[in-house]
Amino acid sequence: MIRETGQIDGYDYGSAKIARSPVTLNELQELKVTLRWSEEDERFLRLAGEVLQDQTEPLVDLWRKQIIASIPHLARHSRAPEGQALPDYVTRSSRRFQQWVLDTCLQPYDQDWLNYQHEIALRHMAPKKNQVDHVRSTLYVPFRDILAFVPVMNETIKPFLAAKGHSAQDVNAMHRAWIKSMQLQMALWAKPYSEPPAGYSHW
Amino acid sequence: MIRETGQIDGYDYGSAKIARSPVTLNELQELKVTLRWSEEDERFLRLAGEVLQDQTEPLVDLWRKQIIASIPHLARHSRAPEGQALPDYVTRSSRRFQQWVLDTCLQPYDQDWLNYQHEIALRHMAPKKNQVDHVRSTLYVPFRDILAFVPVMNETIKPFLAAKGHSAQDVNAMHRAWIKSMQLQMALWAKPYSEPPAGYSHW
Repeated sequence: MIRETGQIDGYDYGSAKIARSPVTLNELQELKVTLRWSEEDERFLRLAGEVLQDQTEPLVDLWRKQIIASIPHLARHSRAPEGQALPDYVTRSSRRFQQWVLDTCLQPYDQDWLNYQHEIALRHMAPKKNQVDHVRSTLYVPFRDILAFVPVMNETIKPFLAAKGHSAQDVNAMHRAWIKSMQLQMALWAKPYSEPPAGYSHW
Repeated sequence: MIRETGQIDGYDYGSAKIARSPVTLNELQELKVTLRWSEEDERFLRLAGEVLQDQTEPLVDLWRKQIIASIPHLARHSRAPEGQALPDYVTRSSRRFQQWVLDTCLQPYDQDWLNYQHEIALRHMAPKKNQVDHVRSTLYVPFRDILAFVPVMNETIKPFLAAKGHSAQDVNAMHRAWIKSMQLQMALWAKPYSEPPAGYSHW
């Protein structure tokens, strides 16, 4: 389901307070050409959105509570600098994470989507990480960890895409479209990560 | 086949003139943990290396001469700034590209591999791009284009992995290992791309 700003704490998709992305729609179009993005991909992403609609909570719980939580150098980004758990932070950000899965599948990749991509990237970086939820945690998530976690997400989402009885061919088409969108988003996130404040690395 | 430095023009794997990577073996190990890299992945990458051994030329030709050459914003990186073809540059860099496919599959991911990963990334950036082959071309390949091209490489390599009659299960395991290695390499390349000279963007 596409949700409105404010229905989820800190979820500001399409809100006037979200700045314009420095990436242009023309640059987005070039990235789609590089990826060989097709109408079929768009159609199957919509289908993936229907299929994932009622599965985003177990999906995100698998990623965060099972996989990420078991890897200390990843888990620390949801914890206080001294190591304490931050259950409210995890709950709030997991709801946005779930909504991001649906937005990936169901939103048109237009100016609002581009703006929010940039906002989400910034919320993984200093100084924006932690601000929305008023928490003390790591200052940023290194880009290398995000990039390296993408294949894990891509691999583990496949059973969820297959869970509603679609043909292997349709599941593969949904999966291919999902994978392309993940890397498209990584290419967009590379913009702020490649242009950090002078002398500051987010690697 | 693992080749020696100098057998291919500009191929300097393991050479004393290659600087030490700023990425540590410990950071590499953390990335492998994030990726859930396994011994099975290593075994199937070796098998992929055997399977791809005599196919690297058509594989790289597919990527460069068919796909990249047909996309102007990618093709320009193998051309002069005024648009002329640079056939020697394409030939020399394609031979290295082919060897990189085999190195991805067959080399141990040790200090030499780490060092050469960093060198290859720098050779896509200013000021190192073009230097090895003494050509005039674009100053750098934007990181976004490299990231966005990875799913195309991953998708199109699969028939090559299947070309020697291995079971679907083994082909999938080779493919999974290849995909993980691609993203591991992107995470390593993100180091120099995320730390460009002040005020300079390679996005």
